[in-house]
Amino acid sequence: MIGIKKISSYLPETKRSNFDLKERFGINDAFIEKKLGIRNVRIKDKDDETSDLCVKAFMNLKRTMDIDTSKIDCLIVVTQNPDFNLPHVSAIVHKKLGLSTHCAVFDISLGCSGYVYGVSVIKSFMEANNLSHGLLITADPYSKIVDENDKNTTLLFGDGASATYFSTEPIYELGKFSFGTLGEKYSSLLCKNNTLYMDGFEIFNFVTTYIPQDFNLVLELNALKKDDVDLFIFHQGSRYIVDTLRKSLKLPEDRVVFDIEDYGNTVSSSIPIILEKYQDNESVKCIYISGFGVGLSWASGIIHRTQ
Amino acid sequence: MIGIKKISSYLPETKRSNFDLKERFGINDAFIEKKLGIRNVRIKDKDDETSDLCVKAFMNLKRTMDIDTSKIDCLIVVTQNPDFNLPHVSAIVHKKLGLSTHCAVFDISLGCSGYVYGVSVIKSFMEANNLSHGLLITADPYSKIVDENDKNTTLLFGDGASATYFSTEPIYELGKFSFGTLGEKYSSLLCKNNTLYMDGFEIFNFVTTYIPQDFNLVLELNALKKDDVDLFIFHQGSRYIVDTLRKSLKLPEDRVVFDIEDYGNTVSSSIPIILEKYQDNESVKCIYISGFGVGLSWASGIIHRTQ
Repeated sequence: MIGIKKISSYLPETKRSNFDLKERFGINDAFIEKKLGIRNVRIKDKDDETSDLCVKAFMNLKRTMDIDTSKIDCLIVVTQNPDFNLPHVSAIVHKKLGLSTHCAVFDISLGCSGYVYGVSVIKSFMEANNLSHGLLITADPYSKIVDENDKNTTLLFGDGASATYFSTEPIYELGKFSFGTLGEKYSSLLCKNNTLYMDGFEIFNFVTTYIPQDFNLVLELNALKKDDVDLFIFHQGSRYIVDTLRKSLKLPEDRVVFDIEDYGNTVSSSIPIILEKYQDNESVKCIYISGFGVGLSWASGIIHRTQ
Repeated sequence: MIGIKKISSYLPETKRSNFDLKERFGINDAFIEKKLGIRNVRIKDKDDETSDLCVKAFMNLKRTMDIDTSKIDCLIVVTQNPDFNLPHVSAIVHKKLGLSTHCAVFDISLGCSGYVYGVSVIKSFMEANNLSHGLLITADPYSKIVDENDKNTTLLFGDGASATYFSTEPIYELGKFSFGTLGEKYSSLLCKNNTLYMDGFEIFNFVTTYIPQDFNLVLELNALKKDDVDLFIFHQGSRYIVDTLRKSLKLPEDRVVFDIEDYGNTVSSSIPIILEKYQDNESVKCIYISGFGVGLSWASGIIHRTQ
């Protein structure tokens, strides 16, 4: 049974403070703290390409566990901001990490739902093809496409990356997952001429309509009640969206994570950045994860501690 | 057991003849017929986006079978030339086809190995998540990125698309697959500043080195001998590459397909365009498929007729 063995992440050191933009955008401290919940966003080094962020997340992973790179037989990168349109970023990462030629490698193009999809894709693909050492990497540096004059996006998105190791000796096994799409509204989050455009109102409506329904479905699929779940990790879009979901679903505050004050919305990396922090906490056994955004798309599921 | 139920493709009507470019590129009939094996390449309508090619392939599929679009619960598009960097093309196709919100949707970024990967990914993902009506679409219109002054690419690549329906009542089941990557040489096939660059010599060396080794591995994995295989479908890069593989592997000429004279190298669509032609031929029971290219990447496997 393939599952999650270990998770690491990478956040660039460079911070840009939202407090420095108060005058420019006519916002106040309360907006920054209560609505966004984001004081700083991280910005990657100018010379770092998406593949470099992937490598940095992997190097952080390597510091926490023994990895024999020659054994890695599957590498999937989740991104919508590749180094080039082609090849896929994962091929470049394959080179930079010096992986074996006997390694299945591809990119998944998804945004904020990408980690949850990725977890299910890599597990099922590895099991079907008898692979045993997999890497799922997320890296979607929106600093490449955010217009710094656009208040709707520049205050929100930060750069980050994650690397998750999958093996037959997991610390988390996967439960049942649910996936959905509202393609009808795809233009609410779109990158045209290298510039990100976001209709926050549409996204908010989408999330508050579809995620609560789906939440109940995921619990049912896994034969769980709310109280059986130790931690709820929603995609960290903003404090307002996470708070709204928590209240709407009547979830206890101490089991719903909000964590992005110091780095921002890192798209597909937001969930693994949090999972990394809880992976050694053995009292957290059952975790709900839910990603939603670009597409408009969502993916949710349960992961269980094995030990 | 999820497998392939039906395959259709789409080729744009507009043809550009390589014979018209003889003088410009200093080539002769023998080069066109014997080396390229490509008389015409297809060029999509200027206004057609990648998602439109996907829809056209799907509409051709719909003409050959009853499809209840409300039942489609998985849609994967393989492309490296999306409409936008984000969202993924599959989200746009989801809208254009009016699919249900209960549909898992994402893109895979891969080139010529993309169909073979895609077949394995969609089957394993659907089985793991209890999905039963899937669509795998390929569409990678290189006319968007080919420099028409570049003899290395403009004579080769044509536009096309395919749509493959996956269900629990398949006509083909999947055997064992093999995947590999030579990331070290990724820059041999690359799109920078919206222009494709290809080092044909490096690609040729890559294919003739790795595909024959892998061919034997795939037969072994599936416990088959050459004579057990009714049809060998290699990615249709050019006549020269397919002929070289056929000779090197000592395969009988009548069981190795070469088919692209009238449309060119359609990247990830080259294999399904051929599979479509054989799907009703019941004497063809065991098929080897092998895609290779961008990455540099390869994927090969066996599919078996179920009836």
